[in-house]
Amino acid sequence: MLKVVSGSHSQIHTPLRESAFIKACRREPTPHTPIWLMRQAGRYMPEYRAVRDRMSFLELCHDSEQAADVTITAARALGVDAAIIFADILLVLEPLGVGLEFVKGDGPSIREPVRDPARIDALQPYDTADRLSYVYEAIRLTRAELTEVPLIGFAGAPFTLASYLIEGGGSRNYVATKQLMYGNEAAWQRLMELLAGLINSYLHSQIDAGANAIQLFDSWAGCLSPTDYARFAAPHSTAALRGISERAPVIHFGTATSGMLGDIRSAGGDVIGADWRIPLDRAWEAIGHDRGIQGNLDPVTLFAPTETIAQAADDILERAAGRPGHIFNLGHGILPQTPVDHVKFLVDHVHEKSSR
Amino acid sequence: MLKVVSGSHSQIHTPLRESAFIKACRREPTPHTPIWLMRQAGRYMPEYRAVRDRMSFLELCHDSEQAADVTITAARALGVDAAIIFADILLVLEPLGVGLEFVKGDGPSIREPVRDPARIDALQPYDTADRLSYVYEAIRLTRAELTEVPLIGFAGAPFTLASYLIEGGGSRNYVATKQLMYGNEAAWQRLMELLAGLINSYLHSQIDAGANAIQLFDSWAGCLSPTDYARFAAPHSTAALRGISERAPVIHFGTATSGMLGDIRSAGGDVIGADWRIPLDRAWEAIGHDRGIQGNLDPVTLFAPTETIAQAADDILERAAGRPGHIFNLGHGILPQTPVDHVKFLVDHVHEKSSR
Repeated sequence: MLKVVSGSHSQIHTPLRESAFIKACRREPTPHTPIWLMRQAGRYMPEYRAVRDRMSFLELCHDSEQAADVTITAARALGVDAAIIFADILLVLEPLGVGLEFVKGDGPSIREPVRDPARIDALQPYDTADRLSYVYEAIRLTRAELTEVPLIGFAGAPFTLASYLIEGGGSRNYVATKQLMYGNEAAWQRLMELLAGLINSYLHSQIDAGANAIQLFDSWAGCLSPTDYARFAAPHSTAALRGISERAPVIHFGTATSGMLGDIRSAGGDVIGADWRIPLDRAWEAIGHDRGIQGNLDPVTLFAPTETIAQAADDILERAAGRPGHIFNLGHGILPQTPVDHVKFLVDHVHEKSSR
Repeated sequence: MLKVVSGSHSQIHTPLRESAFIKACRREPTPHTPIWLMRQAGRYMPEYRAVRDRMSFLELCHDSEQAADVTITAARALGVDAAIIFADILLVLEPLGVGLEFVKGDGPSIREPVRDPARIDALQPYDTADRLSYVYEAIRLTRAELTEVPLIGFAGAPFTLASYLIEGGGSRNYVATKQLMYGNEAAWQRLMELLAGLINSYLHSQIDAGANAIQLFDSWAGCLSPTDYARFAAPHSTAALRGISERAPVIHFGTATSGMLGDIRSAGGDVIGADWRIPLDRAWEAIGHDRGIQGNLDPVTLFAPTETIAQAADDILERAAGRPGHIFNLGHGILPQTPVDHVKFLVDHVHEKSSR
């Protein structure tokens, strides 16, 4: 276990609904800008690599105690304002029996990609309460131990999950995904409805188990034109989020979405993610100031000297201009080779610089 | 050779300065919206594959007669409003002696990536008039034969070329590039100045040889935050374009740049490229209506049924609203498996639909 570092702004003993993170989700003033980092429990961290030496990625996801431990260790080591449950957006696809694998170095892969209508029709919805119970158990264990900061639950959005299911892994151009989408809209809609239903019940169960907020990862929605996003993806993200915002704040995340932030906002969410490809002030204008914003540091900035990191963070804080509702984060997950010290430096720097 | 298809809107015998393409570059009214397609001479086309069966990609680039033939064949087969000289943005790197290769299926690779200051200092500027003369010769040959439409010359922008040089090929996160940029700004600036100088003389020579317009490809600039783009990339693109706009219209192209179109415009260009990740009307507003716009169809749309292609093209034309200065194009190059018939359908459809 890592040494517990409680940052100067630690929320220990503050009821979680009064935490900086949850207040920022509600666009209420906070004593400092809350910060957490996507993939904050990941390969850049030696404690995490030690766990992974003993078990595979999927084994770790399935092991509720270890997943909780990894979640808590990272949050405490960094002194961030929120934890995010250790899991993967693709776990929802595993009970569909498509052969989900995480190949060392190559990322996720689906052994039997789903590309034709017959295979889509053969996909069976399943009971998420049963088949994904190990995630809820990890949430319960984390909540029991981690009382000082809120815990974020999450799921992949239907479009992003569908793209993995169809491409069989990561993709550069999403040709197979878009071919199905354009070429057989009825089959596409059936697939998206199936996924939206699974995601929705998965998210509700995560809140039941104790998640204090939810992030919907539509990581690859930015490969779509805004018109296609609105037609083929957004309604299903809205369905996946049905009834969630009423129970816990929702962060709606995507990358390369600078030209469609308003469309993402329309699909749902209390806080909208913006990557680094747009200045935060212009992103917030596009989203609307009646929503929060999460972002927007380039993850590669963490490889730079600390003065450069400070400069880039200050630029973002200045553009947020102290307006309530900004959650500091990277524009995408922490990369594997990132220096741990730089991650800690960023967290402390944002806390200090934004103290009000 | 392909059968010569002269589209209903062919500019045959019209002086090129009065062609729809050149007039659109100057934001003058045109009888129809001009269209050409990035990588219109490429693997999707059987005639091109036949040539490539006989020679490698680099051999084809070096063979001025074949390059001219491939250029002309594609432009005539499609009935587009402009040809673009067959070449590659990385040819400028070849005389630097870094081991440029095009590996079958894997795209370009640099055998000896340049990552440390000593290697940057060891790079020698060279005489582009001499070492890249085969490109100018291809331009002269094309101009002599292809009298009906303008010919576009092009180069990669300093940032995009530097990213290949440093990463050694394509990249997902550009970690090495940004590490050098952030970690050793002096070395970065030296590299960018070297590249900008080479590009600038290369572009001037292409105009000398007969290129009627120039496109600067900053294909990967969209991986930068707008702040980093303005600091580390834009001044060098401006330097690369020095004196060019005065001689021929300049199209300034990038992808994933929805959040920094204004910054790209500030760096130079008469026409600014916009990919499909932003609606054309909002992109043009961000660029400013005192510049032209090129784009912005998703290349994968060409895999869709023709009704879907028509719908997407119509949406773009409606958003352009007949304002002079729109050049229709894809947001990035034609993909290898694209059906040729669909490409022709798009060209004809845009011509018909935009007839004024």
